[in-house]
Amino acid sequence: MQTYNLAVIPGDGIGVDVTAAAMTVIEATAQRHGFAVTSQQFDWSCAHYLETGAMMPEGGIDTLRTFDAILLGAVGWPETVPDAVSLHGLLLPIRKAFNQYANIRPHRLLPGVEGPLKAKDFDILCIRENTEGEYSGAGGRVHQGMANEVAVETAIFTRTGVERILRFAFDQARARRGHVTSVTKSNAQKHSMVFWDEMTRHVAQDYPDVTMAMMHVDAMAARMVMAPESLDVVVASNLFGDILTDLGAAIQGGLGFAASANICPDRSGPSMFEPVHGSAPDIAGRGIANPIAAIWSAAMMLDHLGEAAAAKAILTATETATGQGIGTRPGQQSTDDITTAILTALET
Amino acid sequence: MQTYNLAVIPGDGIGVDVTAAAMTVIEATAQRHGFAVTSQQFDWSCAHYLETGAMMPEGGIDTLRTFDAILLGAVGWPETVPDAVSLHGLLLPIRKAFNQYANIRPHRLLPGVEGPLKAKDFDILCIRENTEGEYSGAGGRVHQGMANEVAVETAIFTRTGVERILRFAFDQARARRGHVTSVTKSNAQKHSMVFWDEMTRHVAQDYPDVTMAMMHVDAMAARMVMAPESLDVVVASNLFGDILTDLGAAIQGGLGFAASANICPDRSGPSMFEPVHGSAPDIAGRGIANPIAAIWSAAMMLDHLGEAAAAKAILTATETATGQGIGTRPGQQSTDDITTAILTALET
Ligand SMILES: CC(C)[C@H](C(=O)O)[C@@H](O)C(=O)O
Ligand SMILES: CC(C)[C@H](C(=O)O)[C@@H](O)C(=O)O
Repeated sequence: MQTYNLAVIPGDGIGVDVTAAAMTVIEATAQRHGFAVTSQQFDWSCAHYLETGAMMPEGGIDTLRTFDAILLGAVGWPETVPDAVSLHGLLLPIRKAFNQYANIRPHRLLPGVEGPLKAKDFDILCIRENTEGEYSGAGGRVHQGMANEVAVETAIFTRTGVERILRFAFDQARARRGHVTSVTKSNAQKHSMVFWDEMTRHVAQDYPDVTMAMMHVDAMAARMVMAPESLDVVVASNLFGDILTDLGAAIQGGLGFAASANICPDRSGPSMFEPVHGSAPDIAGRGIANPIAAIWSAAMMLDHLGEAAAAKAILTATETATGQGIGTRPGQQSTDDITTAILTALET
Repeated sequence: MQTYNLAVIPGDGIGVDVTAAAMTVIEATAQRHGFAVTSQQFDWSCAHYLETGAMMPEGGIDTLRTFDAILLGAVGWPETVPDAVSLHGLLLPIRKAFNQYANIRPHRLLPGVEGPLKAKDFDILCIRENTEGEYSGAGGRVHQGMANEVAVETAIFTRTGVERILRFAFDQARARRGHVTSVTKSNAQKHSMVFWDEMTRHVAQDYPDVTMAMMHVDAMAARMVMAPESLDVVVASNLFGDILTDLGAAIQGGLGFAASANICPDRSGPSMFEPVHGSAPDIAGRGIANPIAAIWSAAMMLDHLGEAAAAKAILTATETATGQGIGTRPGQQSTDDITTAILTALET
């Protein structure tokens, strides 16, 4: 029997609850679809940082390298550890170390979910560059604390980095409705974003069957709210993708529904799957976190591992549950109740 | 009689129609409120660029310096002139040359306007840093066209620049509901945005009567859609403010309603007032552009010049018109009809 070995990093706050829920669903699915899952849990988190001085132990990346995939809950607990420390100590280095350059985030309304928009019929796949650009970490500060202090943050885009994410997006569009919108801000950022636009035109030539449009990030933010049904695949830089996918989460009813996959397309290392939401200190420990984003992310993981039928079964079961009003409103049901409803739907 | 001398730059596309409409409304208001307006029109635009090789003539900035304020329509005609050229040749240098560091953009629904959200009761004032940050223009490209090409775009934040925009935002909050939300991305951009957060805490100490919150830009994008009524003054960097104000325009019903002021707070140079929308090549020359964003911007100009009563009269007349269904839907009435309705409302 095919066995997948998973690294599970619950992380902070509600990350713990939602990864537990997702693992239950994965295990139930495995039995029915004829594969097995083994897993190892890692308590790397802000609590770990406070104990040891590091978000993950030395060699953490090498440990993760041996797994087939990584399921992550949420990283961050700003009350005790600055986000700039926790994220740069755990989430961001994993994305970079395993070349998980494609962050995939689907945005559509699950049945029964009431979004904030009047619009209902949209199905957007955001592809976010995940390893460079505005989150390169390059920069610094001079004259700290002085009147003439300057802070500098440098966005770095490589041809390799930009070309591969664009190709990935065009490939995704082929399996969908055949349309890519590439997002930049080339009217104001004339080095990086003009370069991205050039690369978009270049890559598009290899995909005559895919229609391509280019749009500025500000206009795209407006469009996701005014006319989301007009979008298919949206591809954007690290920062723009970050902003647009939180907006995507909002229009799909909230972060409780927003799944994501950090994909290493050449499979030279494990890919990582995580809900878009954070650790949610305000509701952590109360057992009311919505596990749907994590469960959907788990389905994306199974799909990536080659278990498309199992992935589909999880999504269908989730849709059955939300269609019955389960998990559609914040705090209405407990994490356990929502998970149980999805498990029940899986069995039928 | 107090006379204001205005520089009018219609620019490209629908910029021409909407500035003409706004000037008609200003002139009608002037008579009733006991001031006079003189104006000079400048045809600086993409057409000007194609003729002369420059968006504005040499010395253009010095010419503008002698005016009390600038009314601008829209800049850009990407079919003939790349945006990176047209914007860096006209709009962006004016903002920088006159130290118009505060870009003010109000977001609320005018009566009769149907927004894309179910939420209706919001009243947000976005304050966008307008002279530095991610639009500094610093950067470049190495190994152009080679496999190892790298494009670099450097965001530059100065203590002066960050501190003054924060103080401006806190001052605005005092005149409103007393709440400021400062937007960064300090969990991923650990130089510039950590600095901005520090400055926010520093400036907030001088405003004990204003409540302050800090939020990441991705979460803010979601919040503007999920809970816009929870926001009062929002302050953000050049790029983040750009994105969030287009989103703000969307939730207020579209770019046809989004006004903006580029303010030079120390009045060492003229301030500039412009609708948020662009030149809209798709509807340019058809006489159907919505002039409301430009007319609202003109009201902000009169307010800035000290004519608060006239500004209020224009806004009230605009609300009367939209309350009657005039200008509330794209293309339903012509630019002229909407302007006439507002002029009529002004007279009563
Ligand atoms: C926590 C943060 C660093 C992260 C990001 O911006 O990448 C998150 O917002 C996300 O979208 O995955
Ligand atoms: C045209 C563009 C450079 C401009 C900007 O980003 O500043 C516009 O989007 C705006 O919001 O005023």
